[in-house]
Amino acid sequence: NLQMLELFLPPRWRRRLSLLPYESKSFALSIFRGQVATAQVFPYPSVLNDEQEEFLRELVGPCSKFFEEVNDPAKNDALEKVEDHTMEGLKEMGAFGLQVPAELGGVGLTNTQYARLVEIVGSHDLGVGITLGAHQSSKEKYLPKLASGTKSSEHIAAYCLTEPTSGSDAASIRTTAVPSPCGQYFTLNGGKLWISNGGLAEIFTVFMKDKITAFIVERSFGGVTNGPPEKKMGIKASNTAEVYFDNVRVPADCVLGEVGGGFKVAMNILNNGRFGMAAALSGTMKGVIAKAVDHAANRTQFGNKIHTYGVIQEKLARMVMLQYVTESMAYMISGNMDSGATEFQNEAAISKIFASEAAWTVTDECIQVLGGMGFMKDTGVERVMRDLRIFRIFEGANDILRLFVALNGFQNAGIQLKSLQKALKNPLGNASLLAGEITKRAKRKAGMSTGLTLQGSVHPELAHSGELTVKAIEQFGTVVEELLIKHGKKIIGNSFVLKRVADSQHEKMMCETWCTEVRCTEIQSTAQILQIHSYLDFTFYV
Amino acid sequence: NLQMLELFLPPRWRRRLSLLPYESKSFALSIFRGQVATAQVFPYPSVLNDEQEEFLRELVGPCSKFFEEVNDPAKNDALEKVEDHTMEGLKEMGAFGLQVPAELGGVGLTNTQYARLVEIVGSHDLGVGITLGAHQSSKEKYLPKLASGTKSSEHIAAYCLTEPTSGSDAASIRTTAVPSPCGQYFTLNGGKLWISNGGLAEIFTVFMKDKITAFIVERSFGGVTNGPPEKKMGIKASNTAEVYFDNVRVPADCVLGEVGGGFKVAMNILNNGRFGMAAALSGTMKGVIAKAVDHAANRTQFGNKIHTYGVIQEKLARMVMLQYVTESMAYMISGNMDSGATEFQNEAAISKIFASEAAWTVTDECIQVLGGMGFMKDTGVERVMRDLRIFRIFEGANDILRLFVALNGFQNAGIQLKSLQKALKNPLGNASLLAGEITKRAKRKAGMSTGLTLQGSVHPELAHSGELTVKAIEQFGTVVEELLIKHGKKIIGNSFVLKRVADSQHEKMMCETWCTEVRCTEIQSTAQILQIHSYLDFTFYV
Repeated sequence: NLQMLELFLPPRWRRRLSLLPYESKSFALSIFRGQVATAQVFPYPSVLNDEQEEFLRELVGPCSKFFEEVNDPAKNDALEKVEDHTMEGLKEMGAFGLQVPAELGGVGLTNTQYARLVEIVGSHDLGVGITLGAHQSSKEKYLPKLASGTKSSEHIAAYCLTEPTSGSDAASIRTTAVPSPCGQYFTLNGGKLWISNGGLAEIFTVFMKDKITAFIVERSFGGVTNGPPEKKMGIKASNTAEVYFDNVRVPADCVLGEVGGGFKVAMNILNNGRFGMAAALSGTMKGVIAKAVDHAANRTQFGNKIHTYGVIQEKLARMVMLQYVTESMAYMISGNMDSGATEFQNEAAISKIFASEAAWTVTDECIQVLGGMGFMKDTGVERVMRDLRIFRIFEGANDILRLFVALNGFQNAGIQLKSLQKALKNPLGNASLLAGEITKRAKRKAGMSTGLTLQGSVHPELAHSGELTVKAIEQFGTVVEELLIKHGKKIIGNSFVLKRVADSQHEKMMCETWCTEVRCTEIQSTAQILQIHSYLDFTFYV
Repeated sequence: NLQMLELFLPPRWRRRLSLLPYESKSFALSIFRGQVATAQVFPYPSVLNDEQEEFLRELVGPCSKFFEEVNDPAKNDALEKVEDHTMEGLKEMGAFGLQVPAELGGVGLTNTQYARLVEIVGSHDLGVGITLGAHQSSKEKYLPKLASGTKSSEHIAAYCLTEPTSGSDAASIRTTAVPSPCGQYFTLNGGKLWISNGGLAEIFTVFMKDKITAFIVERSFGGVTNGPPEKKMGIKASNTAEVYFDNVRVPADCVLGEVGGGFKVAMNILNNGRFGMAAALSGTMKGVIAKAVDHAANRTQFGNKIHTYGVIQEKLARMVMLQYVTESMAYMISGNMDSGATEFQNEAAISKIFASEAAWTVTDECIQVLGGMGFMKDTGVERVMRDLRIFRIFEGANDILRLFVALNGFQNAGIQLKSLQKALKNPLGNASLLAGEITKRAKRKAGMSTGLTLQGSVHPELAHSGELTVKAIEQFGTVVEELLIKHGKKIIGNSFVLKRVADSQHEKMMCETWCTEVRCTEIQSTAQILQIHSYLDFTFYV
């Protein structure tokens, strides 16, 4: 039996025959091949050692307290800036150096620890969240300066990518960097749009034309100016301004990475930051859900507390589910990153899309539950809604990220398919692989199981969800394969197909069944029977 | 053949045998019975005579000009009030007496004419729209005062229903009206919440406890005060305030309708006003779509104008469709009302739900098309989005209205089913009816046509849409019948079932196929092939 034979063939032999395609460890990529890469997903990553967990616990209390007692999100929103004493308090807490190594004066948090604190920020004030988030990531040279700091705003950083003609299309930037004849410096000219912290920062990560190069630019270099704060719908507390570079002389050692390597730098910063957005927004959702639950438990209409009505129960159940999935994605990605994983870009992009849309839906539904009260400034939910609108646009517009997710996946699946097509040209030499693939395809078509299973990976009580997941992955893999065969390379230009694939129910279901803990069973089953009681006990946990 | 026999039986005979249930003329009710009441839908109502049309044309120009040149929505939003000179201009134009008969000093518009002007208001400034809308509808005695007016704000009116403990549950209001021993007056005490124009109005339509009675109350009666303007997410230009009644003595002839008849008055005012919201929001969508199309046609990303990308084309196509359906509903209802129809409550409720959600989606997508620019105040779309959030909540929260739509429909279908059940008890005497019904049911189950058709009603080019509609109506009727048989009267308490029925794809499809004109074919087919060109030519029409 050829199939059996294949099973006994050692992987390196098969790889040598270039029959075994490169197998990405990314779960989100594997499903494009109709497979399941479980390593980064099962068991759910738990990366903090006791010491790290203890340190985190010590930080969570004061951080929460600061946001409950010192920071005033409504006032920040009205003033269109973070209040001065809050800014000072944040600096003292080290909030501007959370991931800077301790030996350089920072707090030295792992990604997972960082995610937990960002979650607290997100549950209280997204304007502050953007101020902190825009500050993250810069060249090591500047790390000490970017850390906690003691004196002034000179330590705040900004990330300058967007230009008037270049939003999603980062490759089309126009600001120029001309090298000096001596090679000692570059002269920068141009302008950047919608720069968070643009009016506050002293240090800028700037992306320039000519194969795109990234520079670290200090305001003190001279020639750096900024426009007035932009008037926005939300995240008003965060400063957004145009930044202009007028013959700015930048030392050559301020190039980040290498000349022409700016696109990679930009994407790395974005990719590495996305889990932070998911973490922050999972916090936002917790805060918003708490308000909805509180209102539902206390408001009487038609003779009953409104949490007794099915329409309200269903809303709350869905809200809790969306929060749960977002949180699970955020910590899965941060956990993988902390474990040294290098393939999490698709997961990060999915988490950004999912989180920004989930938070939007949850907050929208919270307002609906609150009724007229939700529309009033006093309740504080309308501010969250205004803040959230930009999250589906910036750091990669969701519409573009969807294409990114699909293209990445297709590319990965395409490699596998190609090696299969190669094998078809020499069927005799590749009999065992082909037999396996042909059997798999025939089984898929007949709706039979292909042997793919999550048994042993998921908790027995989630066995049924596991089966549904496998079925969805098999269907998804088939669709991807059919589309690749039909469109080939031209699929890159077909944004209809890409969007639909990225959007597909299957993938969504993936996310929803990324719940591997027992707690998940609890929430899912209560969601199914739509009982509110467990949500009323819904509490925050470290 | 019994069936044939039934066909020859004159209707009044069948009715006399109480076999034929009361057949509502409402299309939206008829589909709950699996039938099609075409009278109010086909042909699409066209109610204006030449003179009325001419008059409307004369008004459209100056009205549009006023909103383009005099009214400043961004400034109204920032000031949190309609600018004084704008308010004066509106009064001069007669905007506060649009439907007051000409002989009483008003403009004397029909509902259809009113809808067209409200559409213009909605496309420019929803804050002004609410100020005008909240003013509408009062007792005839006050009509002259409520008309154009010349002097002061003493003529502005407000509708006072909501109380802190009574939002959607209008029956639970607590403000009291105690009749005097002499019967000459009532003494009013209590407070009302979130009253549009509450701080501006001199005349209030107020709903009081005790079987609910509606009163016309003048501020000049004494004892009427109001709180400060509420701070809101949007429609900031419109004044929203609490209104307090402290021992207000109201003459007995200020009772609207009859004592205890207030609930009917409240519902009539709401029902009669809903088409106005659909009209206003269809205008809002036009304005927003124009901005999205303009941006898409001029913005270059990845080397092409973005309107050439499928993702953008699909967004714009869907936006145009939603606007078209909303507009069609608004003018269908106003047309039916102008023709003296009395059964449009379900249509009005559906139009309110659909319009408020469609406008929300369209504006949200417009922001997504505009990217970062959509989040900035300058573009003016974020204001529209903030304004729109309340439309899904006030004038009947959509969640509650959905139940209303479903309950109304079930009640109507229940009558039919009951008469059928009655017939079943005397099968011999009712053989012909039963044979017909049994055949119909058998055919439905077998997926065969029951003879229901829209041929002759819809344009031949829409024949396929007509067939789909009929199929959907048949399925919908079957589901409703099964649910009624299963749940009986208890369905009233089952908000899950009701919501799903109100939400059902079938009904949504109804709305979408309420497009009977040829123009519709145009838009639908272009939407299907997802070409943008026709949308770039998308222009406003009278």
